[in-house]
Amino acid sequence: MAQDVKLDATALNAFMAEIFPQVAREYRVEHVAPMQADVRLITAPHHLRPGGTVSGPAIFALADLAMYAVTLAMIGREALTVTTNASLDFMRKPAAGRDLIGKARLLKLGRVLAVGDVMVFSEGTDAPVARAGMTYSIPPQRNG
Amino acid sequence: MAQDVKLDATALNAFMAEIFPQVAREYRVEHVAPMQADVRLITAPHHLRPGGTVSGPAIFALADLAMYAVTLAMIGREALTVTTNASLDFMRKPAAGRDLIGKARLLKLGRVLAVGDVMVFSEGTDAPVARAGMTYSIPPQRNG
Amino acid sequence: MAQDVKLDATALNAFMAEIFPQVAREYRVEHVAPMQADVRLITAPHHLRPGGTVSGPAIFALADLAMYAVTLAMIGREALTVTTNASLDFMRKPAAGRDLIGKARLLKLGRVLAVGDVMVFSEGTDAPVARAGMTYSIPPQRNG
Amino acid sequence: MAQDVKLDATALNAFMAEIFPQVAREYRVEHVAPMQADVRLITAPHHLRPGGTVSGPAIFALADLAMYAVTLAMIGREALTVTTNASLDFMRKPAAGRDLIGKARLLKLGRVLAVGDVMVFSEGTDAPVARAGMTYSIPPQRNG
Repeated sequence: MAQDVKLDATALNAFMAEIFPQVAREYRVEHVAPMQADVRLITAPHHLRPGGTVSGPAIFALADLAMYAVTLAMIGREALTVTTNASLDFMRKPAAGRDLIGKARLLKLGRVLAVGDVMVFSEGTDAPVARAGMTYSIPPQRNG
Repeated sequence: MAQDVKLDATALNAFMAEIFPQVAREYRVEHVAPMQADVRLITAPHHLRPGGTVSGPAIFALADLAMYAVTLAMIGREALTVTTNASLDFMRKPAAGRDLIGKARLLKLGRVLAVGDVMVFSEGTDAPVARAGMTYSIPPQRNG
Repeated sequence: MAQDVKLDATALNAFMAEIFPQVAREYRVEHVAPMQADVRLITAPHHLRPGGTVSGPAIFALADLAMYAVTLAMIGREALTVTTNASLDFMRKPAAGRDLIGKARLLKLGRVLAVGDVMVFSEGTDAPVARAGMTYSIPPQRNG
Repeated sequence: MAQDVKLDATALNAFMAEIFPQVAREYRVEHVAPMQADVRLITAPHHLRPGGTVSGPAIFALADLAMYAVTLAMIGREALTVTTNASLDFMRKPAAGRDLIGKARLLKLGRVLAVGDVMVFSEGTDAPVARAGMTYSIPPQRNG
């Protein structure tokens, strides 16, 4: 698994700004290492639910984007990579008024599937808000 | 499982407009029956990804809301009911330019957990876009 | 999805007796239809836990085998088809002294992945014991 | 999360030998620390599939037992703790002729639910065979 990173955080943020301009204002790739990526959700009022907590869909979106980031970090620009499975445990209410950080790691980077997990934290806290196992399908044309 | 419905579609839409005003403009409970609810995502530009397909987070949000709707239909107004687990398979690209329909059914309505599944379709098509298994935690105070 | 069945229940039972002789004494394909298969777990003492309930691993094995049966029913003899993801909700204690029935349906039969779900019941009861979403990887050589 | 361990590896093995005598011959708790437990599957012919690989149900059973072990390590002898959800990704074929090790960690130990994950390895290898997210329901009477 000693593979090189093909896209660093700067390159990933530029790629996402190009293909998902709406999303890229809210999420930012913070750190990339081989088989790992950390992504920040810059929380805004439309992510919140009554009581100031971040909504489930916003947490899902963060996990999904963190997994996308780590996959692209390893395989390069490949917009057509898509989620095929996501299994999430929501464990704690996010802290009000804080960004969320999703820490993704790739556990398998196969020919057609990438499998990883993501731990989601309120910034500055140790107890995870959510955990996700995710699978991405990698389009075959990248081998061409 | 021959339980009565405590909230019908009209009551659920009113409740969601009250507690989730942003969400309620995009989602509409269409039909409720014992242990079942159908919810519509009125697709709008911000749900879309390049190519006109509905984003994964919007599909997650629909599944989550459909499960919420069927749970509240059976237990009554209980805003604090929260998702604890969600497992989704994304199977097909949604049809461009169509609303999505999430069909939820409750499989178990226990004292502390509600378990169900949701099938998501592009309106007017038979092949499912996604499938979700979901668990909600029901706050204990409702028994008081 | 109007696809023909390539292997019926008799052919599936014969194939499983050939490749999984231990397993085939405990599980039996009961019924096959396009995109559907029902499989029985003939419960025996080693499947049980204290109190006479069927163990979680035995329920998992039944769901896995039911998904395998429905996939092979549609694609033909392909022993190398393997599970890549399984998400299970365990909802009720199985009834003591009864066989379990796993009802699998394929929701997507793609080129490389088959996705389906399985409902597990104690024979003769309506409330499900467990629900599973499962994904199988189909080896590429079948296209050759 | 700086909680004490209530049962160590020796106590857990003794408890499992008492309540699951069949299972205890095949699985052994190797190591316990706060919120963590490692469990070994002593592979035997009946766990294998053609080609010498360990079967999916045996991997599921190992993940389930590792999560059970870590939960009981923290809450004490509580046989009625049961799995409510399990989401597994099967990533690599286990190495032939080796035991499997399941490394469980608790991510949340709540009043009614325990949530954790398990990484499964062939002994002596770094690339995981499988990953599981698991939820256990804790019976309320333990608080009495």
